[in-house]
Amino acid sequence: MNWQRIDGGVTAPQGFLAAAIRAGLKPSGATDLVLLVSEVPATGAGVFTTSVVRAACVDYDRELLQRGQKIRAILCNAGQANACTGAEGAQTTQVSARLVQEVLQTEDGVLIASTGVIGQQIDRGKLERGIREIVKHLSREAGETAAQGIITTDLVPKTMALETTLQGKTVRLGGMAKGSGMIHPHMATMLGFITCDASVEPSLWQTMLKAATDRSFNQITVDGDTSTNDSLLALCNDRSGLPLITEPDSAAAQTIGAMLTDLCIYLAKKIARDGEGATCLIEVQVYGAENDSQARQIAKTIGGSALVKSAIFGRDPNWGRIAAAAGRAGVNFCQDQLRIELGNYLLMDQGQPLPFDRSGASNYLKLQAEASGQAQSIDHPVVIKVTIGDGKGQGVAWGCDLTYDYVKINAEYTT
Amino acid sequence: MNWQRIDGGVTAPQGFLAAAIRAGLKPSGATDLVLLVSEVPATGAGVFTTSVVRAACVDYDRELLQRGQKIRAILCNAGQANACTGAEGAQTTQVSARLVQEVLQTEDGVLIASTGVIGQQIDRGKLERGIREIVKHLSREAGETAAQGIITTDLVPKTMALETTLQGKTVRLGGMAKGSGMIHPHMATMLGFITCDASVEPSLWQTMLKAATDRSFNQITVDGDTSTNDSLLALCNDRSGLPLITEPDSAAAQTIGAMLTDLCIYLAKKIARDGEGATCLIEVQVYGAENDSQARQIAKTIGGSALVKSAIFGRDPNWGRIAAAAGRAGVNFCQDQLRIELGNYLLMDQGQPLPFDRSGASNYLKLQAEASGQAQSIDHPVVIKVTIGDGKGQGVAWGCDLTYDYVKINAEYTT
Repeated sequence: MNWQRIDGGVTAPQGFLAAAIRAGLKPSGATDLVLLVSEVPATGAGVFTTSVVRAACVDYDRELLQRGQKIRAILCNAGQANACTGAEGAQTTQVSARLVQEVLQTEDGVLIASTGVIGQQIDRGKLERGIREIVKHLSREAGETAAQGIITTDLVPKTMALETTLQGKTVRLGGMAKGSGMIHPHMATMLGFITCDASVEPSLWQTMLKAATDRSFNQITVDGDTSTNDSLLALCNDRSGLPLITEPDSAAAQTIGAMLTDLCIYLAKKIARDGEGATCLIEVQVYGAENDSQARQIAKTIGGSALVKSAIFGRDPNWGRIAAAAGRAGVNFCQDQLRIELGNYLLMDQGQPLPFDRSGASNYLKLQAEASGQAQSIDHPVVIKVTIGDGKGQGVAWGCDLTYDYVKINAEYTT
Repeated sequence: MNWQRIDGGVTAPQGFLAAAIRAGLKPSGATDLVLLVSEVPATGAGVFTTSVVRAACVDYDRELLQRGQKIRAILCNAGQANACTGAEGAQTTQVSARLVQEVLQTEDGVLIASTGVIGQQIDRGKLERGIREIVKHLSREAGETAAQGIITTDLVPKTMALETTLQGKTVRLGGMAKGSGMIHPHMATMLGFITCDASVEPSLWQTMLKAATDRSFNQITVDGDTSTNDSLLALCNDRSGLPLITEPDSAAAQTIGAMLTDLCIYLAKKIARDGEGATCLIEVQVYGAENDSQARQIAKTIGGSALVKSAIFGRDPNWGRIAAAAGRAGVNFCQDQLRIELGNYLLMDQGQPLPFDRSGASNYLKLQAEASGQAQSIDHPVVIKVTIGDGKGQGVAWGCDLTYDYVKINAEYTT
């Protein structure tokens, strides 16, 4: 299996068009409406927030996908999250989906995503005018513009595309995401959109998306809060010309699944690095667990520890906090086997503290943060490596440091 | 059932002595060794950290209590947590327990608690000299001194005693705790010690302690981290003259259980208020759940949300963050029934946002923080009241706001 990165984002795969406009939904006047269209009926899959307080569009999309309807488009607005908006909010979602069907002259389904302030209704007049306008701007070149269009407080857009050759056909995946962690000053959300021009049997496509999510978006944390709108939506059509993929064990399914995971991990790392107030990306690797799921759980707990995060902001190689976070992850292990490394520094082995070059380890944290600061780079993570035993389970999680700016951003924002 | 507060802390109940000295274990030279003794064999109970990375003393105490041995004393050192210290650390715990038995000339059990830096061995020579010295200072008057002696980074000591009359006998409970939240810059811990001069059958005493903990120490959070040393130890002897309490439904058991819960809630609130960098105490009340356990879970999730905590530091009545935190607590409810109040301000009802006096609500947050700032008072909490349905389940949790100082304290501390 091999593939390469290409430009173009969500419109890199064949048969996908996008557009982004200013519809007047955001008080700031910034771009706030994005439409992503497949020229032919596409197969949809989705992963959503687990919160019981959910935006209207989350319930709408989940039901549409469960019915197995073919999908033609995804509409995403920014400015209002359409969460805690009751019957009127649910109606707004339905009305806008129907209007997109009308302007695209299709009976296929339309998925809806919203992001912004919770508890505010979307201005339906502006939204309807926006939908009638945005279809005029659809293009193959708008993938990167769309990625810029869905961000809110993010410092950088997050987009990527991959290309490979399968059975002589060129196959592409594209993706974009928004999110400054799991949660935003505006109660906005993690949204992700993925396109693929190889046709995959619907339940297999959903399985692939869930598996990729478990290794990517479900492994990042900025502050441990889950939002009301988290949605990852993926569309695949048949424009690559590759025959329908139905067998999970086939080479094509394996390759596309791996590409999908690669793409989701890239976008997830970009979100963690762009976490509110963060100065660096933290990558926690856990080895030696009984299974991958337990390893991922420990990795996520360490990456989410406020104490570990603030120590890294202080460039302090405080391994005791890493050990304590590992211990409270809800996974049983023998503490006498615990081993902790920070970059190339071995801090603890066999459950015992080791003498180590403290200033060298602190300097490692400084250097990674400096390198990481350039354009929100994800290429210089602070790497924490934890081994808990002799098992084969392993997992990775990503987070960011906890800084004064996190508190500032979230304390000073007024609803 | 009625009772009153009295002075004296852990030595208020009959038959308990305490002492606190400087044994040279802390580099600062502050008080770092506390001994609590029952003049007669006492019944012990304990609740401990759920972390698999545990201090040596946690395992030692748990085993001692499980064997059902009578307890004569509790020794607590500060400076080193004796966690991640392997076989040598375990031996230090055993050696010091035996030495306390020797100096007290008793075969009864001795419980051990440690707090301080993780991964450092306790200086055994200093500890042994300290134990031989501290027994000379035991007194009935040292309850409050002992409470001062166990704190580390806490801004105020935390102690309380209660008195009631049962069957013509005066019965007293005393308690002290340390903790600046669940976690400390020094990897120190929440420690709690309780004394009672009414004799309770061992398994009932343990049940009472667990029930009180579930409504108090298990309902506070500063940053969601669980430490390696968390221990709540409770001793009861028979010095009040009240006959042994064996029936859970008896008036005496009910009264003592309620007093124990009252005392633990007081100490727990003191810890939450003294959370690192906090400017106020937050009390989250949840009503209408199917059962108390679910209500407590939601209350704790809201109280632990970084976003809710930073909004309160910003004096921002951002109810959307409260709704979002309630939704992700892992408890199913219908969001159309959600109701949220902040102090006397109704912000959301029937799952719908309501117009409210935003500056009035913000001012409420300012006023509570100002009043709460006086001597770390717990009498002016910011009260968040959430109703999720029509059930009878209710629960309360306590936390504190997330401030620049929390990040400062935890980033600037160097191991």
